[in-house]
Amino acid sequence: MTVVVPYPTLLSTVAGVFAERGVPPDRAEVAAEALCHGDLTGVTSHGLVNLTRLYLPLFDSGRTDPAADLAVTRDLGACLHADAGRALGLWSASHAMDLAAARAARHGVGLVSLRGATHIGCAGHHAARAVRHGMIGLVASNCGGQRIARPPGGLRAVLGTNPLALACPAGDRHPFVLDMSTTVVPTGRVRAAARAGQEIPPGWLASDDGTPVTDPAAFDRGEAHLLWLGGYPETGAYKGFGLGLLVEVLSALLSGAALGPASDSGVDDDIGVLALAVAPDLLRPGFADDADRLFAALLDCPPVDEGRPVSYPGWPEGERAQRRRVHGVPLRRELYEELSVVAPALRAAG
Amino acid sequence: MTVVVPYPTLLSTVAGVFAERGVPPDRAEVAAEALCHGDLTGVTSHGLVNLTRLYLPLFDSGRTDPAADLAVTRDLGACLHADAGRALGLWSASHAMDLAAARAARHGVGLVSLRGATHIGCAGHHAARAVRHGMIGLVASNCGGQRIARPPGGLRAVLGTNPLALACPAGDRHPFVLDMSTTVVPTGRVRAAARAGQEIPPGWLASDDGTPVTDPAAFDRGEAHLLWLGGYPETGAYKGFGLGLLVEVLSALLSGAALGPASDSGVDDDIGVLALAVAPDLLRPGFADDADRLFAALLDCPPVDEGRPVSYPGWPEGERAQRRRVHGVPLRRELYEELSVVAPALRAAG
Repeated sequence: MTVVVPYPTLLSTVAGVFAERGVPPDRAEVAAEALCHGDLTGVTSHGLVNLTRLYLPLFDSGRTDPAADLAVTRDLGACLHADAGRALGLWSASHAMDLAAARAARHGVGLVSLRGATHIGCAGHHAARAVRHGMIGLVASNCGGQRIARPPGGLRAVLGTNPLALACPAGDRHPFVLDMSTTVVPTGRVRAAARAGQEIPPGWLASDDGTPVTDPAAFDRGEAHLLWLGGYPETGAYKGFGLGLLVEVLSALLSGAALGPASDSGVDDDIGVLALAVAPDLLRPGFADDADRLFAALLDCPPVDEGRPVSYPGWPEGERAQRRRVHGVPLRRELYEELSVVAPALRAAG
Repeated sequence: MTVVVPYPTLLSTVAGVFAERGVPPDRAEVAAEALCHGDLTGVTSHGLVNLTRLYLPLFDSGRTDPAADLAVTRDLGACLHADAGRALGLWSASHAMDLAAARAARHGVGLVSLRGATHIGCAGHHAARAVRHGMIGLVASNCGGQRIARPPGGLRAVLGTNPLALACPAGDRHPFVLDMSTTVVPTGRVRAAARAGQEIPPGWLASDDGTPVTDPAAFDRGEAHLLWLGGYPETGAYKGFGLGLLVEVLSALLSGAALGPASDSGVDDDIGVLALAVAPDLLRPGFADDADRLFAALLDCPPVDEGRPVSYPGWPEGERAQRRRVHGVPLRRELYEELSVVAPALRAAG
């Protein structure tokens, strides 16, 4: 059912597809790394499955401009505002974090605020680029004018799934990488369940009157809407909605990108992205040792179930990525066939 | 059952109590404003009820130093690292945000990282000080070495309730103020239910084996532990835990304060605080208009129940505060009596 592809092959294949569409080769590599990150770490909903469904159609329709550069509209040293000009978000978000890290290396903190971005893929991947410099990275992205989730007690969708990510060094362990939609799950999880014909738990979808819906196909039939982190008010749905707004403010309101509640388009164009990097070593001595102690203590926590050790966000994904970098990345056969059509190089290398 | 006290009387009374304990008068006023904010906005779990229970004992035991100043240990322009030296957190967190805003006014972004803080009260109040300058303010605070909540699937408590707050101007409306514990509720909500003899909903507390506990008194009997935002894994408890860690990283790991999972003390001393301010008007034109459109569109969302209009975090609290500034702040009779003992000026003014 799966085909295992060497990671370097996968990376160069995907980079080749982007380069063919006009993305400069060095950027195509950065974008390919961001896209393959999903399959490398097991977050398949944000991986290669989106190449033909999401990214290539963006090129075809002109909604992304492969050659666009970031146009810096304000440079305050620690702080940059830029228009991404519809450049491929898989690249521009990584580039924004690299710029933020470069500024943080001088000022302790670096902030890049981006408008005009397109879909960035795994927010956590971009945040984790800061870790390469021993820094903490935060990424927030709205979904442009796209409206998926309603305020608790409201009848109209106002915001997208608005992802938030934070990455931090964890000594010689896999870095801490929190990468989450502020909705209870991303739409990809609902659609995957629908394709597999599986029921979903109560707390993901609800009908207009608030009744839980456990048939995932009801979402795309327009008969159920996606709930916020927390699911119900009792378990924190108001906080989930608040976090969705926190992301909207930091990513889109700050940058002047399209705002979910107040955009005419209703689609995920003109996405706003915030990339924030902080350089702990410039602030104080001893950060690396403390990070080591913090994350070691978490892995040390005795588990309820001996077979399921406690970890932290980023650790299981790091383990999986480490194995797959060596032994290859498993792709579902259908996905492999699909990729082989747009990238014959994949089959030739296999 | 309640006594209504004019807001200025309440403020000056509480400032007087702090000043009597040795807090310099101007700082006592800032701290009083932070403490009264809870009762002014209706977040009573973080209001005056804590004066005799939490803050005065900190003075008595020497766990707070009324005269301590912030010792700046690193100044990078956009970025400051400081030791709060056990100064009253109700003041130091507000002061940190004021410093961050001053730096943001020059650099676009300002970050103040504080170690050695004490309990800060409502994180949202401190974040909202940025709004006075037309800025976005973010505050994160850990609980020092205090350990309350366990990782999902873990048997040992590792972190406190780790609050996160973001505030943002909303045109001529009440500012957006998200102010949340990253646990499903703060411990104050559980204890209030226990005092009132009320059941709590499933998803707040669980026993060792994960069974939901609806008796709030089980928490202080040590028979149940507090869950993360999301409550259960199905509705996002792993994200809630991840957000608790995000706060721990930004507040305590960055600053070198006590780390919940790796501290010997187990108590909420040496708290870490992050205050981040961003100045949107330095980044781009049009921010105020866009903020106006964003928050107007949210208030405009048609509600499920006509009697319960949709709003955003900070709006209901802003309405309540506006009324109470004019008509006075209602205090439960027992709380009023309690305050009158430590501050006879209250009764004299009444």
